[in-house]
Amino acid sequence: MSEGRLSEFLQEISQDLDRSVKFWTDNSHDQENGGFFNCLGEKGEVYDDLKHVWLQGRQVWTYCRLYNECERFRTSEIIQAAIRGGEFLMKHAKVSSSSQKCALVLTRDGKPIKVQRTVFSECFYVMGMSELSRATGEKQYRNEALTMMDQIVHWVMEDNTELRFGTPTLPGQVPVSSLAIPMMLLCLIDQLETSVPDLGEKYSYVSEWSLKYALMHVQRDGTVILENVSPDGKELPGSVGRLMLPGHSIEAGWFLLQYARKKGIEDLKKTAIEKFILNPFSYGWDKEYGGLLYFLDVDGYSPTQLEWDMKLWWAHNEAMIAFLIAYQETKDTSFLDKFAHVFDYSYAKFVDKENGEWYGYLSREGKVSLRFKGGPWKGCFHVERCLLMCENILKNLIQNKV
Amino acid sequence: MSEGRLSEFLQEISQDLDRSVKFWTDNSHDQENGGFFNCLGEKGEVYDDLKHVWLQGRQVWTYCRLYNECERFRTSEIIQAAIRGGEFLMKHAKVSSSSQKCALVLTRDGKPIKVQRTVFSECFYVMGMSELSRATGEKQYRNEALTMMDQIVHWVMEDNTELRFGTPTLPGQVPVSSLAIPMMLLCLIDQLETSVPDLGEKYSYVSEWSLKYALMHVQRDGTVILENVSPDGKELPGSVGRLMLPGHSIEAGWFLLQYARKKGIEDLKKTAIEKFILNPFSYGWDKEYGGLLYFLDVDGYSPTQLEWDMKLWWAHNEAMIAFLIAYQETKDTSFLDKFAHVFDYSYAKFVDKENGEWYGYLSREGKVSLRFKGGPWKGCFHVERCLLMCENILKNLIQNKV
Repeated sequence: MSEGRLSEFLQEISQDLDRSVKFWTDNSHDQENGGFFNCLGEKGEVYDDLKHVWLQGRQVWTYCRLYNECERFRTSEIIQAAIRGGEFLMKHAKVSSSSQKCALVLTRDGKPIKVQRTVFSECFYVMGMSELSRATGEKQYRNEALTMMDQIVHWVMEDNTELRFGTPTLPGQVPVSSLAIPMMLLCLIDQLETSVPDLGEKYSYVSEWSLKYALMHVQRDGTVILENVSPDGKELPGSVGRLMLPGHSIEAGWFLLQYARKKGIEDLKKTAIEKFILNPFSYGWDKEYGGLLYFLDVDGYSPTQLEWDMKLWWAHNEAMIAFLIAYQETKDTSFLDKFAHVFDYSYAKFVDKENGEWYGYLSREGKVSLRFKGGPWKGCFHVERCLLMCENILKNLIQNKV
Repeated sequence: MSEGRLSEFLQEISQDLDRSVKFWTDNSHDQENGGFFNCLGEKGEVYDDLKHVWLQGRQVWTYCRLYNECERFRTSEIIQAAIRGGEFLMKHAKVSSSSQKCALVLTRDGKPIKVQRTVFSECFYVMGMSELSRATGEKQYRNEALTMMDQIVHWVMEDNTELRFGTPTLPGQVPVSSLAIPMMLLCLIDQLETSVPDLGEKYSYVSEWSLKYALMHVQRDGTVILENVSPDGKELPGSVGRLMLPGHSIEAGWFLLQYARKKGIEDLKKTAIEKFILNPFSYGWDKEYGGLLYFLDVDGYSPTQLEWDMKLWWAHNEAMIAFLIAYQETKDTSFLDKFAHVFDYSYAKFVDKENGEWYGYLSREGKVSLRFKGGPWKGCFHVERCLLMCENILKNLIQNKV
C-alpha cells in the first residue's frame, strides 16, 4: 500500500531536510568563538549559551556528512562552520593537556563545566573529526579521530581507571554491560571505515567484540532487548535489569543490519530485523496514543524514570531509518508500511514546518511538551541524519523501480 | 467558606494517615537485614530491593516522629522497626570507616552502590538519628546525629573538598547557591532543637547563615523565588539561573514561617508567607489542569527538565502544610481556602484509598503516570509528615473554636 507513496515521502523529507538544516545554519553558529549554540528555542533564539560536547561533535559530523554526500549542501557556509566547530573542539573539548578525557559541557568560550565518567563525549569527538577529515582531506583531523578512537577502545576493553577520576569501585556495585557501548563502537568503526576503508580491518577485533556484546542483550528466548545485562550476558536483578528502551534497540538494529549487509552475514540480518527492530517496535509502540514509548519495564512495572511515557523525536528518526533499510534489504512491503506509520505520526506531531527542525519531546498523548528545538541532549544530528539517509534510500528505491 | 470543613479535613486526613502508615508497616520492613524496602509497587510488592539512604533516614524519622507525637502510633512495632532502620544506617550508610560520607544507594544487605557529591544522605541520617534518640532516649543515636551535623556544617560552610572525591573544580564552573542547602540546614536545626532545646542556641550561627542564604533566592523585586543564585545573591545566566521549583519554594516557606514563629520575627513571617508561599503557589498552580507544576523557567522558556509539567505528590504535601500553618498563624481564611483547594485536588488525584499511600507522579492532565508507591526518590516521608502535621494543626484549630 505504501509503495505508491515513495515520491511523496521523498518530497516531504527533502523539504524537511532543507528547512531543518537552515534552522541550524541561521541560528546556531557562534561567529565569535567557533562551535555552535545548541540551546535554541522554537524559532531559533539562543536561550542558553552552554555548549554540550556531544552536540558539538554531532553537529560537526552532520554538517560534514551533508557536505560529503549531498550536492546541495556542498557549500562554503557548511564546511566553514564545520571547520570552526572542529577547531573549537580540538582547542577546548579535552579537560587537560595530559589526557584525552573530554568535557560534557563547556562555556561559550570553551571552558569546561562538567565531565562525565563515560566515553560518549569522546565518541562524538571521533565522529565529528573523522567526517571532517573526509570533507577536508586534512590529516590532522584524521589523526585526532584515530588517537581518540584508540583511547576509547583502551578505556572500554582494557582499563577504565582514568574515567573514574580516582573514585574506587564500591563493594555493592556489580558490573553492567549497557547496550550503548557496543552500539557506539560499531557506529564509530562504520564511520572510520567510511572515511578510510582500511580501518575496518584494523578495528575488526573491536567489531567482533561489539557484535558479541550487543547480541547479549537479546533476552527471554529472543523476545526482548534488555538495555543492561551482566558482562556474561545474564539478566540483572531490579529495575536496572528489567529496563527496555525501544527506540534505542531499534537504533542498534539498523547499526547491526548495516554491519551485516556490509559483511554479508545473513543470520545477523535476520536477528537485526526480527529481534532488534520488529520486537521492540511491537512492544514499544503505544497502542493507545501512537508513538514510541521512551522506557519500559519488561515485567510491566512502572519504570522509575519519570519521562518513561514521553515520545522522543530521535526514537522516531531511528525507526524511520530502520524500517526503510529493512525494506530496501528485503523488499518486504510490510516494512515500508511500518515506515509509513512512523512517518505519518512524526509529520503530524514532531515536525515544525513553520520554523524548521522537529520538536523533541511530546507527552504520552502526543502534545508538544517542551517547545525548544535544541537543548542539553538535542542538537543538529538525529533529524538530519535520518532525513539524509531516508532521502538517499528513497531516491535509490525510486530509481530502481523505473 | 472552608471553615465549615475542618472536621471533614481532619477525618479524611486521619484515616489517610492510618492507611498510609499501614502500607509501610505491612510491606517495607526487611526482617532479615533491618532497614526498609523502599521500592514498593501499587499494592506494596517489592519490585526492587535497593535501599536508598535518603529514604532509609526519612523512614526512621517518620516512624519516630509518629511514635513521639501521636498516641495511636506509639507501638512496639513502629519503634522496633525504627531502631532496626537506625542500626542498619549506622552499620552501613557510611562508605568507609574513616569518613562520615554516606552512600546514596545500598544493596539490601548494606553494601554501597552509589555515592553523591552532596550532603543530603547525611542530612537525612541526622534527621533519623535525632528523632530516634528522642524516641528511645539512647545517647548513641544523639551522638551520631551531632557528629554528622557538625560534619555537614563543616562541608557546607568551611570546606567541601572531601565531598568532591579529589576531582578538581573545573575552570568553567561558577559557584552556585542552591535553595536546598539553607532550607535543609534550617530543617535540621529545628529537628535537633526539637530533640534537645539547647541545640538551637549552639547552632544559631548556622541558622543565621541559612536564613541569609535562603532569602537571597527572593528575586526580581520580590516576585519570584529562583532555585539557584550566585553566592552573593545575583541571578545566574542561562536555564540554571532561571529555574523555579514552586513546590520547593513553598516548602522553604513553611520552614521559614516556622522559624519566624519560634523566634517571633514578624517581617520574616510576612516574607515567608508572601514571597515563598503565595507567589510560587500563584505562578506554580496549573491554571489549565490544576496541580502544582514541577519546574518553571522565570522567563517562560521551556524548562529543559523533561518532567517539568508533571504533578508530584510532595509539592502538594508541602502546600497543604504551608497553607494550614499560614491560616493557623494569621487566621486569614483565604489560606484555608487555598488549603482546601490543594486538599481537594490531592484527594481526587493522588490518594489511593484502596491500597494506602499516595501515588507520586501524575501527568500534566492529572492522570497517574507511574503507579508505584515507593521508588528511588519516594518513600515513607512527605505524605506521613504532611498528614501528621495537618492532623495536629486541625485538632488544635477545632479545639480552639469550641
